[in-house]
Amino acid sequence: MPLSGYPEWSPRDRVIERDLLGSLHETFRLHGFTEIETRAVEPLERLVGDSETSKEIYGISRVADPGEEMRAGLHFDLTVPFARYVEEFQSELVFPFRRYQIQKVWRGERPQEGRFREFYQADIDVVGRDSLPIHVDADVASVMLEALAALPISPVRMHINNRRVVEGFYRGVGVTDVPQALRSVDKLPKIGTDAVRDELVSHGLDESISATILELAKIRSDGGEFVSAVEDLWESSRHVSDVELHQETLARGLLELRETWESINSRHPQMVTVDLSIARGLDYYTGNVFETFVEGDDRLGSVCSGGRYESLITGGGFPGVGLSIGVSRLVSRLVSSGRVSVTRAVPTVVVVAVIHEDSRADSQRVANILRGRGIATEVAPVAAKFGKQIQYADKRDIPYVWFPGAAGSADEVKDIRSGHQSEADVSTWEPPAEDARPRVERH
Amino acid sequence: MPLSGYPEWSPRDRVIERDLLGSLHETFRLHGFTEIETRAVEPLERLVGDSETSKEIYGISRVADPGEEMRAGLHFDLTVPFARYVEEFQSELVFPFRRYQIQKVWRGERPQEGRFREFYQADIDVVGRDSLPIHVDADVASVMLEALAALPISPVRMHINNRRVVEGFYRGVGVTDVPQALRSVDKLPKIGTDAVRDELVSHGLDESISATILELAKIRSDGGEFVSAVEDLWESSRHVSDVELHQETLARGLLELRETWESINSRHPQMVTVDLSIARGLDYYTGNVFETFVEGDDRLGSVCSGGRYESLITGGGFPGVGLSIGVSRLVSRLVSSGRVSVTRAVPTVVVVAVIHEDSRADSQRVANILRGRGIATEVAPVAAKFGKQIQYADKRDIPYVWFPGAAGSADEVKDIRSGHQSEADVSTWEPPAEDARPRVERH
Repeated sequence: MPLSGYPEWSPRDRVIERDLLGSLHETFRLHGFTEIETRAVEPLERLVGDSETSKEIYGISRVADPGEEMRAGLHFDLTVPFARYVEEFQSELVFPFRRYQIQKVWRGERPQEGRFREFYQADIDVVGRDSLPIHVDADVASVMLEALAALPISPVRMHINNRRVVEGFYRGVGVTDVPQALRSVDKLPKIGTDAVRDELVSHGLDESISATILELAKIRSDGGEFVSAVEDLWESSRHVSDVELHQETLARGLLELRETWESINSRHPQMVTVDLSIARGLDYYTGNVFETFVEGDDRLGSVCSGGRYESLITGGGFPGVGLSIGVSRLVSRLVSSGRVSVTRAVPTVVVVAVIHEDSRADSQRVANILRGRGIATEVAPVAAKFGKQIQYADKRDIPYVWFPGAAGSADEVKDIRSGHQSEADVSTWEPPAEDARPRVERH
Repeated sequence: MPLSGYPEWSPRDRVIERDLLGSLHETFRLHGFTEIETRAVEPLERLVGDSETSKEIYGISRVADPGEEMRAGLHFDLTVPFARYVEEFQSELVFPFRRYQIQKVWRGERPQEGRFREFYQADIDVVGRDSLPIHVDADVASVMLEALAALPISPVRMHINNRRVVEGFYRGVGVTDVPQALRSVDKLPKIGTDAVRDELVSHGLDESISATILELAKIRSDGGEFVSAVEDLWESSRHVSDVELHQETLARGLLELRETWESINSRHPQMVTVDLSIARGLDYYTGNVFETFVEGDDRLGSVCSGGRYESLITGGGFPGVGLSIGVSRLVSRLVSSGRVSVTRAVPTVVVVAVIHEDSRADSQRVANILRGRGIATEVAPVAAKFGKQIQYADKRDIPYVWFPGAAGSADEVKDIRSGHQSEADVSTWEPPAEDARPRVERH
């Protein structure tokens, strides 16, 4: 009966997911991103493009109308719906528009470890009207590094490249179909250098040009050295005629890449690498591109990717930069790693005991006062022996049981972990901060 | 291009929606309900039952596999997935299990005012193992009344009935197909008494029996008077032979209904009416049933419905009681009513001005300190004239602009609404509480 590829969490593991999602909401909020939410469904013609992802789209249709043409489908990312949203709401938006969006997306992928058919993405984008300063690229990337650093996961490293560098270089050395070559280079981590070279050559690319662009993809640096490495490779390569335009593109790309690297690195030292192999499948990017890896977990793939684009909307005029975190994969990894645990699955801090069923209303009044003060409280479901009522709390890891005092005597509260019981006033008692809510603890 | 029936909110209206959702989360949390989230997709055989809703199910299938049999669909409520969840996770759950769930659901309805194809539901249920005390019905209903009272909507009134009353009474006066009769009675608010009578008779029910059950449906009371009203009607009706069993069912139902009404009314005076016309379409309920209406807005229909059921899971053993709020309809009503407004659409409290592009890093440092103290902060995107930077904040209703001091001089912060500007220390300055987050204000 379980559908594969659709992750679902026990109440305890859901606390971990909510903790992650809450942390992302908070980081994005602190950086002044406005949250939007789009419907899950888009017209099919919006979803189906030429990318690989098109194959994975789920269409929807009413089961009661089997013959009817399918016209809508579930979004497979948050960029397509965001673009439509900006188009529809542009008169109500102020640009540059900083938006974040955390929602489920659906992809009909073959399920495999960490690849889901339904999963959370968390996206941030800054979209300008007509122009957007280049420094925003580093700002947006830094927000994501901060967001990831706040999660209970291993440190990450961001790899950046620039499409102008690739475009200028590739065209300058004689690559005519740059998107096709990029799609091959994008497979480097999966299939390796030899297979990518074979694929490039099979697509009709000259052997020496293939070798050159594979050389380019090898350049990595954690400092500014990449600039001279690219320039050296460029100098030693054969160029097409009228190379000036391509060289200009390359130079602009190197400048953008260098500035962006420096700006991110000044805020997040040792967390960003220039990596000329980063291709990003989508044709859509035009400047800096980003991928982010969890250190020591290469198999996880990029957990945060994105880049700069010329326009969010067909027809131009809305340049932007955005990155997206694949949240569910991180949650899945955390849940299975055993590296975090949860103090309890229920929000409840206090169970108010019920002395007799006749006095249930008294216990309810106590509970209401505690709730009014923000303390999550349940009333024991049955006026059983106190041992049983304590057991009700204990089974759920609820830390406190409250005993309403009989006429004239004070209420008492028991910490059922220590067994310590003491008089307490319902209008002033506070649990210690660490007991106030279920907590995710790192080991 | 817009798909009808799929509501989507501007950033400003989304603040209203988040505010409502946040308020519901908080009420449910305070009452010790555990949040779960289920996948959006269920196997079709789970979704398709004999209810009216079956016709509205959206199936999903990969666009790339047009011939393939459709095997899964989008959930149309949160009860079907919750039942499956309890089945799958039962070994990890502690019963009675108090769960809440706030998610989108999808229904292929003909779109009309306030009827959506994608909308938020907010559900709470308490599910026992083998048994669940009757007082839980009133507890769960009270939580929902508290949740609704915390929203910026008009007061609500909850109408309750009891299936045992209906079952015992109907069978005792000679109705053989109770579910069919109930489905007709359920149409009373839509089509009126005469049309319901015609429908009952057309289904083969004796005219006098139809008249009797329509008399029953007329009984309403805001106190305990309904008991004698039902008993009087019962006494004056003709009964089938061997009526004792049905009379017992009726008596038990009246007791449950009376206790539940009293318990809710003691906590929420003047908010609950016994209403013998409440039928609830679903066969599934076996005890108390609830519907809730916003006063002065009958056209909205019930905004919170549910009831007691014998078992969540086929095969029995998991009795429970649950209610569900249709959130999106409430949000839609609020948005279009103009009865609430939002202080700003962006989370940002402060924009830090940039004196020169060269000093952007200084402004970023100021922003980071403020963020570290929980204050949502942006850095101005361009080191334009201060007037322009203030305009950036003003256009977004951001209340404060921060001016980093030149070497040696103090920072200053300007409230751009009053124009008041004063020296401020980045490590101690706090905005007034009412400016800390976007707020929804009632008019």
